[in-house]
Amino acid sequence: MKKKNPLILLSNDDGVNSKGIHTLIDILKPYGDIVVVAPEKGESGKSHAITINLPVRVTKISEYDNVTIFSCTGTPVDSVKLAINQLLPRKPDFLVSGINHGSNASISVIYSGTMGAAIEGCLNGIPSIGFSVLDHSDDADFGLAKAYAGSIFKNVMENDLPIGTCLNVNFPVSTIDKIKGIRVCRQTRGVWKEEYEKRIDPHNDEYYWLTGDFHNFEPEAKDTDEWALANKYIAIVPIQVDLTSYEAIKKIRDWAYDISI
Amino acid sequence: MKKKNPLILLSNDDGVNSKGIHTLIDILKPYGDIVVVAPEKGESGKSHAITINLPVRVTKISEYDNVTIFSCTGTPVDSVKLAINQLLPRKPDFLVSGINHGSNASISVIYSGTMGAAIEGCLNGIPSIGFSVLDHSDDADFGLAKAYAGSIFKNVMENDLPIGTCLNVNFPVSTIDKIKGIRVCRQTRGVWKEEYEKRIDPHNDEYYWLTGDFHNFEPEAKDTDEWALANKYIAIVPIQVDLTSYEAIKKIRDWAYDISI
Repeated sequence: MKKKNPLILLSNDDGVNSKGIHTLIDILKPYGDIVVVAPEKGESGKSHAITINLPVRVTKISEYDNVTIFSCTGTPVDSVKLAINQLLPRKPDFLVSGINHGSNASISVIYSGTMGAAIEGCLNGIPSIGFSVLDHSDDADFGLAKAYAGSIFKNVMENDLPIGTCLNVNFPVSTIDKIKGIRVCRQTRGVWKEEYEKRIDPHNDEYYWLTGDFHNFEPEAKDTDEWALANKYIAIVPIQVDLTSYEAIKKIRDWAYDISI
Repeated sequence: MKKKNPLILLSNDDGVNSKGIHTLIDILKPYGDIVVVAPEKGESGKSHAITINLPVRVTKISEYDNVTIFSCTGTPVDSVKLAINQLLPRKPDFLVSGINHGSNASISVIYSGTMGAAIEGCLNGIPSIGFSVLDHSDDADFGLAKAYAGSIFKNVMENDLPIGTCLNVNFPVSTIDKIKGIRVCRQTRGVWKEEYEKRIDPHNDEYYWLTGDFHNFEPEAKDTDEWALANKYIAIVPIQVDLTSYEAIKKIRDWAYDISI
């Protein structure tokens, strides 16, 4: 009996028409049947947001070869939930999110809709990967991703991921001849420091635009994703979703609690 | 010299007019100066989402005693970022988010806008707490929160939180005479399983409503927040934001990578 072709679900947060997701389709087409369910417009920074108070709609926008593409009015996580629960004929064998236009290294992982989609796949027991390149432009250079993403995906197919783990893969801005290799590393400690830009609209009302810079708390630490990327390595961080601070549990157990009644 | 009154920033995801945040104002007023910056409408399920492609607006809606209240058109995390960077006279001494109408235990922590706000405070080095009650109704019973939240906040004031840690506090549906106490515990392993409801609108187009049930993967584990809540304890989970799966790093380092060029 012929083995079933793997079913690969794709999503992202830059929207169904972005260059990144179409590059990803091209990379993964040889490995199985592709179903894309992605936001109809850009949903960057949507993190793990879901749509509760509004309905969500889905439109099939194209179908060719072994590729079917749906757009969704919701967030990246909505797209994954709808795909798994309504649109796909069976649970997908893999979920791949991206390729994101812009970095999702360090703390950006918690703001990223692309990683939100990958984490949602992971929560549902689907081996999941998020790919990002450190180039935010619409016409980002995906050369490195084209060279390496297939191999990383093949490793996930062949070696499996530990249960409850997905991958956050970031590609630096570099070229195939200059890249030094792949580093499996940890999430850098850092924070985005915002400096909102305050403007006045034509009706004389104030509004704010979000701007900001990333602050790396440990630029010298060589086992981090930011170090890898700054030194021309591809960074792979295995991600899990237990946020418990086990170290803090004991300390907080010793507190005294009085109730006010 | 008189010691400065602590500056306490409040936010939530149910919106600035919800009963939960006004209960929280009443609880925390005795401890310092209160500034509320919260979404103008319900932003449940917004996770750590930020608003990038639209401007955000803020309106001062009231000022009385030692309380100032702003509404914000953005997400809970936008509200916190704007408060810290534009609205407050100085970095707040504490951030308290909630009181959320509905549970944020187990994996709900990653979908929750209330916890998104608390985590954003934590990332900025502010001792932060998210409070939630297991009652989703607009008129939720905050009796237990009124009895215990002040004491938990006082512990954070007096004992400090470990750096990079915030608290996820959930109150079960119970009463002061029936509650068994407080348990400091870990995040339960579990997942929300969605069953979208598909409907047809008056124009004959399909749309979907998100519905779902929580599946607890470890209902017998007594060190989890879900067990504590089911057994009439208040659950406190210390939360941190390093998502790295340290166990998986070694395994994935052993993979072989071939590049396609």
